[in-house]
Amino acid sequence: MMALPLSGIKVIDLTQVYSGPYATFLLAEAGADVIKVEPLEGEKLRRMTGAAATPYAMFNANKASVSLDLKSAEGGRGMRTLLADADVLVENFRPGVLAGLGYDDASLERINPRLIRASLSGFGSEGPYRDYAALDIVVQALVGVIATTGFPDAPPVKAGAALADILGGTHLFGAVVTALLHRERTGEARAVETSMLAATYPAMASSLGPAAMAGPDDVLRTGNHHGAGRVCPYDVYPASDGRVAIICTSDRHWQRLASLLGLHALASDAGLATMAGRIARMAEVDAAISAVTSTMSRSALFDLLARGGVPCGPVQRLQEVIRDPHLLATGALIAIDHPEHGALMVQRGAIRFAGLERPPYRPSVPLGTDNHLLAAFPAADANEGPLHDTARG
Amino acid sequence: MMALPLSGIKVIDLTQVYSGPYATFLLAEAGADVIKVEPLEGEKLRRMTGAAATPYAMFNANKASVSLDLKSAEGGRGMRTLLADADVLVENFRPGVLAGLGYDDASLERINPRLIRASLSGFGSEGPYRDYAALDIVVQALVGVIATTGFPDAPPVKAGAALADILGGTHLFGAVVTALLHRERTGEARAVETSMLAATYPAMASSLGPAAMAGPDDVLRTGNHHGAGRVCPYDVYPASDGRVAIICTSDRHWQRLASLLGLHALASDAGLATMAGRIARMAEVDAAISAVTSTMSRSALFDLLARGGVPCGPVQRLQEVIRDPHLLATGALIAIDHPEHGALMVQRGAIRFAGLERPPYRPSVPLGTDNHLLAAFPAADANEGPLHDTARG
Repeated sequence: MMALPLSGIKVIDLTQVYSGPYATFLLAEAGADVIKVEPLEGEKLRRMTGAAATPYAMFNANKASVSLDLKSAEGGRGMRTLLADADVLVENFRPGVLAGLGYDDASLERINPRLIRASLSGFGSEGPYRDYAALDIVVQALVGVIATTGFPDAPPVKAGAALADILGGTHLFGAVVTALLHRERTGEARAVETSMLAATYPAMASSLGPAAMAGPDDVLRTGNHHGAGRVCPYDVYPASDGRVAIICTSDRHWQRLASLLGLHALASDAGLATMAGRIARMAEVDAAISAVTSTMSRSALFDLLARGGVPCGPVQRLQEVIRDPHLLATGALIAIDHPEHGALMVQRGAIRFAGLERPPYRPSVPLGTDNHLLAAFPAADANEGPLHDTARG
Repeated sequence: MMALPLSGIKVIDLTQVYSGPYATFLLAEAGADVIKVEPLEGEKLRRMTGAAATPYAMFNANKASVSLDLKSAEGGRGMRTLLADADVLVENFRPGVLAGLGYDDASLERINPRLIRASLSGFGSEGPYRDYAALDIVVQALVGVIATTGFPDAPPVKAGAALADILGGTHLFGAVVTALLHRERTGEARAVETSMLAATYPAMASSLGPAAMAGPDDVLRTGNHHGAGRVCPYDVYPASDGRVAIICTSDRHWQRLASLLGLHALASDAGLATMAGRIARMAEVDAAISAVTSTMSRSALFDLLARGGVPCGPVQRLQEVIRDPHLLATGALIAIDHPEHGALMVQRGAIRFAGLERPPYRPSVPLGTDNHLLAAFPAADANEGPLHDTARG
């Protein structure tokens, strides 16, 4: 098998829960050797049980597992062994926590001057919120996701996706690889960081323009209509067995949609030939579409419209998502028999390299499976002393 | 100034709208020379006016602008000139479109064997949906975002954030940098691709486990409560001037919250000391919290709780987001006077490299500002002929 892009790159992974583990999952899927380091009781996500165990398995495939107590002398020796020939240390503690455990920049550079340190936190290492704890819903609140989600006549609501976590993690993945490329080109090992707040901000693009120009009483929630009211048709329409999203960003989309749905009078209505004309008659356009779509199934609409060149997607329940024929056919989603959890649908990395196979899939492993990696440490250097004499964490 | 990680890397950018342009924005912010190539009338997003012009400016800062007709012989010569010494060609057409314009893999390799081709589409280059058009809301529908967003007694609703676009773009950024690192290490220029659907799937992690195990009638929408009902407190609570998100993922968070809000009876209630106990009495817990939070302002709650170690974030309107003190203090958001659009708040890249300044900010430029870059092409090679003799697009 051809070598993957990150083959031979050794990553020490101190991350927890979703955001950081997703970054190191992408590193592993690109060929890196990722060693996940967890506390003796396992990280928070590993301790989840039942259905809630799925995310740990999803995000921690293809990683070795080591457990140690970062605050103990023995754990410190283990960490030093791991770091001595590592390329990257990835963490998503709050700023200052890692240094408090004895791993400040100077100590890390002494252990391994080629080590790249990569950090993700809610707010980054500077600024007024730096010390605040951040979880996905906190970032959704601060950055405007909640304010812009929901129907105009109902309260604001969070997105049912952990977008701030995964956007943070994906930026962290890109940051690590960029730092590796920089080291490859210059020999310099530079620390990199990103934050969930800054990583989520660009997703608000559609709403930011109008917000900046409108008054304090502007409508922030538009249900399933376009956030700035500038596209029509754009809605989630009824089907006989659920709902479908349909969006026409061009006049050509509209002509195709109207004709595929048999709305010939509307298709030939000159007043609806332009986006401005359709927006002015949005209620009429949406009602006419709904009258037809409500008589057809989601899959019939998807086949008809998507094949006909109209952007359309059925609103799938998660039981359908994990059986989605496209995700399965492309190998983005695979069925495994997990040694700890049994039958499970899991994802592969979303990035494909032409001519390179994905690495073999190794399910997440029990805590400490690879603790033998810690045993290889050299005799402690008496002059240096254990790193953790002054641990404060 | 120290060189940025991607300095000297030349990127030819054929991308449009949000997803691809965000990827090349991140490349530019890491130091790459990005040349954006648009059709003679400008890409779709550039043609937006008024407040809708903001996203184009956001995502296309620090890029040169060239305009050409990819279907004309002259445009073909211009493209060939640009590609001859480029490192990366980035595009977000549907699969096959670029090849249809004469730029199939073999042609690109003939022009420049060191060129990395990077592609983003809704569904990737394989599988049953490959030819379908995808826009953000279509992916939100297919991947389960819409089904899981909203209140249980109301219809499903899209997230007010273009998460599929920005997740796709961020994965594309990581893909490009990984391919550059691979070329640096091996000399091989490998094409890379990603898809919006696969890039958005991991954000559904919280809901995927329960979905896989529950029956067909499980509740998919939980409003502002935890998607799997496993965390309490977890809600958007009333404040005197709006709402705040509060989440307690540990017993320690809960103890702090109850005591900071003066809920001393609850803080000492042994039945509420565990997550399971709080979940069992969720309505009571939420009501007690709301009774206090509704008497306080968002900023007072944010100061009190976030400083006290409880994850908390005010639900900010977008007018507040673009004035957020943390985003401004960290330079993640800057105020500029845009030559075309006037006063504008714009974002910098969310990834920071220690010891390296961000590149100078150059606002997006008018279409064709850098068309002089096309004039430098060498005399056409008569034996080869223009690339576009057989253009089908």
